[in-house]
Amino acid sequence: MLAATAYQRGMTGTLNDAATRTAEDLVHRMRAGERNAMARVATELERLSPSVPALLAAMQPHLGHALVVGITGPPGSGKSTLLNALIAHIRGIGRSIAVIAVDPSSPVSGGAILGDRIRMTAALDDDGVFVRSLASRGYLGGLSPAAVRMLDAFDAAGKDLILVETVGTGQSEIDIVDVTDVRIIVSAPGLGDDIQAMKAGLLEIADILVVNKADLDGADRTLHQLRSALSLRAHGRDAVPVLKTSAVNAEGMGNLWSAIETCGAERLAEGIAPRRRRRARYLIARAAADLVAQRIRDGAGDTLNNLADDVLAGRLLPADAAKAILAKN
Amino acid sequence: MLAATAYQRGMTGTLNDAATRTAEDLVHRMRAGERNAMARVATELERLSPSVPALLAAMQPHLGHALVVGITGPPGSGKSTLLNALIAHIRGIGRSIAVIAVDPSSPVSGGAILGDRIRMTAALDDDGVFVRSLASRGYLGGLSPAAVRMLDAFDAAGKDLILVETVGTGQSEIDIVDVTDVRIIVSAPGLGDDIQAMKAGLLEIADILVVNKADLDGADRTLHQLRSALSLRAHGRDAVPVLKTSAVNAEGMGNLWSAIETCGAERLAEGIAPRRRRRARYLIARAAADLVAQRIRDGAGDTLNNLADDVLAGRLLPADAAKAILAKN
Repeated sequence: MLAATAYQRGMTGTLNDAATRTAEDLVHRMRAGERNAMARVATELERLSPSVPALLAAMQPHLGHALVVGITGPPGSGKSTLLNALIAHIRGIGRSIAVIAVDPSSPVSGGAILGDRIRMTAALDDDGVFVRSLASRGYLGGLSPAAVRMLDAFDAAGKDLILVETVGTGQSEIDIVDVTDVRIIVSAPGLGDDIQAMKAGLLEIADILVVNKADLDGADRTLHQLRSALSLRAHGRDAVPVLKTSAVNAEGMGNLWSAIETCGAERLAEGIAPRRRRRARYLIARAAADLVAQRIRDGAGDTLNNLADDVLAGRLLPADAAKAILAKN
Repeated sequence: MLAATAYQRGMTGTLNDAATRTAEDLVHRMRAGERNAMARVATELERLSPSVPALLAAMQPHLGHALVVGITGPPGSGKSTLLNALIAHIRGIGRSIAVIAVDPSSPVSGGAILGDRIRMTAALDDDGVFVRSLASRGYLGGLSPAAVRMLDAFDAAGKDLILVETVGTGQSEIDIVDVTDVRIIVSAPGLGDDIQAMKAGLLEIADILVVNKADLDGADRTLHQLRSALSLRAHGRDAVPVLKTSAVNAEGMGNLWSAIETCGAERLAEGIAPRRRRRARYLIARAAADLVAQRIRDGAGDTLNNLADDVLAGRLLPADAAKAILAKN
């Protein structure tokens, strides 16, 4: 209800002058590096406060600088340690970073950067890394609209890089395709079947593959497996770099950053407008999917029951039943 | 392609006599407890082989006995250990069990039952527990059609109980509502924000709440938090039992099993037909959601672009944009 009100106020057309001035002031202070301004903007966006349209308008002229990098990988891949090591490297060369942590099981939990989730949510730090944890805000699966709005805030604040850490199982891999510019998929030796799972889904969306824990036995085998799997892809995926890192020893970060920059330059050249529209289309697509699914799950009627019975008897694929239902509506 | 062919053969109407006899023979042997028959049926269903319609027809008369229990919970809740302890208890009172493991990060990994995923996939054991891991079959997020078909196979085989272990983050919580009869949500002391996340989503779907690791400090506090959260629910959720267990010490399993039986008796009384239809509707809903989302993500055109721009400016909620798009089609 609050959210609807906020948006409706925004929809009245012209923004209130005072609201505009407040928003411009906040964005100005955020761009000057004021941490409390950054935190305030993030909170307003997250809560969909009435100031959101004014804030987005004030941010608009400053969008397009930040590269959005998604990092995902199965549990056990050392993704959080890698994230920590990568951040240290990038900070070392003077770039500014924001992190959006969407993985509830692995909240940049290495401890080097942040102790716990409470402190993460406080979202302030000492050296140019702004972290926002959006894992536990009740949006099960995938990237929330709040996370997507947050990208604009961090971009407008002048961050060079926005890292989005997702859980590596479930919907979020698919989500990061539309929302991020560069996708890093992390693996490690000895994960076994996870490589199989990656073949099925994650490899398709990877821009950079990392074999972390390269100090362990079997790293070269994993590297080889991933390269073989990539070479089976038809659509030019063999250009995807496969890199070894040992995040606990901070090894391989230079190469990884080079790969990110190379891929990122290409994506940034596309411009901000199509990239933002892709993010918005993702949010709309996801909302539409939820609506359609809910209608069918709640639905009754002979058509749906007959289709359900055909699926249960193995006479019809769920996807074909879905096409039939969608064609009816 | 293979899958489509299989279903198309099934759709030709009358099933081939030989196929029917083979299927009935397999189901008969599966019901007699022949493990290789069970494994063969599971594989055929998973691969959508051409024999699927005949198999489902042969299983049909034997459906409705098994109770399907979903177990989910955040990482760190000791869900796998609990699953192991619960299985040991249930086996101890002579009931037969099948397990469908959908959680790629926690594949019944306590080691007591199964060593690793490879052995899990082999799916054979010594004492009436049949385990099928469907975590790594390339279906990112949620329960696959194969997992849902597997429920029929285990039911037809005469299992008393089918346990479905899901990852506890992402889509799968929602999925288990439609697919399982009884939902157990596992928590533990010290998970902090995860309780908040449960409030947002998991509590809504719980039939039984478990505070595992009850030997740890803070268990009573977690119990109290969960009960408070439940009492805020309007729709009679305060009838949901909240139980303490200490799975590593095999404590609390008797109470947990009683709660499962009480809740399960009610659900089984509903009969198999509406429960199976709900599963099928879930599969159709999910397929439809994927189709709709893909269309919008790939879509272009002024309407979609304008809606995307309104979402980006904070003038429109994604859900309202989704309604507008769906109304157009």
